[in-house]
Amino acid sequence: MRSILIINSGGTFNKVYNRVTGELEIDKSGKAIEQIAKGWLTEFKVINVVGKDSLDMTQSDRAKIAETIKGAEENRIILVHGTDTMHLTAQYLSRANLDKRIVLTGAMTPFSINPIEATANLSSAYGYLLQLKENNVYISMNSRIDLYKRVTKNREKGYFQVTL
Amino acid sequence: MRSILIINSGGTFNKVYNRVTGELEIDKSGKAIEQIAKGWLTEFKVINVVGKDSLDMTQSDRAKIAETIKGAEENRIILVHGTDTMHLTAQYLSRANLDKRIVLTGAMTPFSINPIEATANLSSAYGYLLQLKENNVYISMNSRIDLYKRVTKNREKGYFQVTL
Amino acid sequence: MRSILIINSGGTFNKVYNRVTGELEIDKSGKAIEQIAKGWLTEFKVINVVGKDSLDMTQSDRAKIAETIKGAEENRIILVHGTDTMHLTAQYLSRANLDKRIVLTGAMTPFSINPIEATANLSSAYGYLLQLKENNVYISMNSRIDLYKRVTKNREKGYFQVTL
Amino acid sequence: MRSILIINSGGTFNKVYNRVTGELEIDKSGKAIEQIAKGWLTEFKVINVVGKDSLDMTQSDRAKIAETIKGAEENRIILVHGTDTMHLTAQYLSRANLDKRIVLTGAMTPFSINPIEATANLSSAYGYLLQLKENNVYISMNSRIDLYKRVTKNREKGYFQVTL
Repeated sequence: MRSILIINSGGTFNKVYNRVTGELEIDKSGKAIEQIAKGWLTEFKVINVVGKDSLDMTQSDRAKIAETIKGAEENRIILVHGTDTMHLTAQYLSRANLDKRIVLTGAMTPFSINPIEATANLSSAYGYLLQLKENNVYISMNSRIDLYKRVTKNREKGYFQVTL
Repeated sequence: MRSILIINSGGTFNKVYNRVTGELEIDKSGKAIEQIAKGWLTEFKVINVVGKDSLDMTQSDRAKIAETIKGAEENRIILVHGTDTMHLTAQYLSRANLDKRIVLTGAMTPFSINPIEATANLSSAYGYLLQLKENNVYISMNSRIDLYKRVTKNREKGYFQVTL
Repeated sequence: MRSILIINSGGTFNKVYNRVTGELEIDKSGKAIEQIAKGWLTEFKVINVVGKDSLDMTQSDRAKIAETIKGAEENRIILVHGTDTMHLTAQYLSRANLDKRIVLTGAMTPFSINPIEATANLSSAYGYLLQLKENNVYISMNSRIDLYKRVTKNREKGYFQVTL
Repeated sequence: MRSILIINSGGTFNKVYNRVTGELEIDKSGKAIEQIAKGWLTEFKVINVVGKDSLDMTQSDRAKIAETIKGAEENRIILVHGTDTMHLTAQYLSRANLDKRIVLTGAMTPFSINPIEATANLSSAYGYLLQLKENNVYISMNSRIDLYKRVTKNREKGYFQVTL
């Protein structure tokens, strides 16, 4: 059973420019993931939940994400999430003992501004999951993919690193 | 030892438009892979060899690719290759018994025309290799990643499929 | 009366990549011009005719273009055309004495590969026409806009120049 | 004497995404205009001044822009400016009686997010100036190009309109 479920909870990955307000805002409908599927000549199973910037994520939002993962028939989950609190949600999911293979990913740059990073973060998570054997919580950012505790955001440089 | 070597042998992945001739031609310098590394906020180790359209690949070109793989210190190899004879080169490398983990990838659409597919094919191969345990020859195209014999090009539809 | 009619006759401007054949082919439906209108937050009146590479344009195609211009209620016309025989069509239209202000434009690079040149060639023709007072035939390519005889393609360098 | 000077004073046209802060900020070095010149296969003469969001423009900034225009040898000027106070700067320049042909332009969407509007606004201003005979102050936005008093921003819809 190879099927992978993508749960899209928002974050910079999904931000789009609103020319009336001049602001970047989260597209809750998941168009970025649709465009990746279309360009990659494939199809994804996607559930959009929460739809927030990661700084606005509450424990109740995390509970909703955990419920969605628990209720899914798939054992392999990609969770698209904002980068600032990705480690907190990863920790939350780890403590929830979901007995699944969960990879959190996201992007430092919105897909709509430059599609490379978002596309590569998501698809490297996808490839990783196809061979992953152990249930646990992982992070896939900027080519670093490992157990969630080892992949952390370098806030000054603006990318993720592995700390062993 | 997680390091991955990318060997770039050409193909549609690397094609760029030449406005003087009006033709698409292969960029042998590997700019597409450089741009993926830059956008992904990471670095790759890359060797550019052959630099051909896959229909022009000869057995001597395949021998050169096999030599490059054999001579590399890395056990994990991504080979960027044209799609039309990807299966022939995969077969050649399989018969060469290189005792490495080799994933062939490429693109139906040049990175320079639409970056999504090329970026996703390469980075899903990357993620797959990070968890792959068995030496063998694989193909990563359009989210289908498996032993090379199982992933084949559907010439009418213009994408790769898994045949089990 | 400021209204401008765009007549789209094909050429590199309209080429798109076909991933099944691996070739660039002319999109006869005019999607490139639609995308320019959408991005520019405006609307165009467009007629698609002929839909050919300029090397394939015949005198009968030119007659059809001249008829379309003659039959239009607009006095201001932008003709999107391939670059290789743009000067021949311009000459044809000049000899047809249409008593209109006609600006031919096109692109060395397809809009679908890099939108800058096609967008700038078309919109500079648009701005030029808004202030143009004399009926005649003009060319707008690569920021050079003048009477058609003065703007010629430099085939080695791959752009248009003014020869005074 | 056909030469046109581009004065770049900032605005949304020049905004770029900063992945460390997650904010859009003005690139004062004028890379957007450089990329338009490169893609259009042409060269521009450009002066970068002020480099501000138009809401932050002061009368002293406007005085500096007027000085730059006055001191230029060119009679034809394109001023790239933020959209929110474009009309105030246009009025200021009109009252300064500079005896030149000045076209203000800008963009609702940053060039770096979607290049179509910025490219078309600038190049339509360019084409307009090539045929413009009367010294005065004009605005070129979203295909509407006219005396500055007639082209105004529709804040709800997010584009410029002509009010006659």
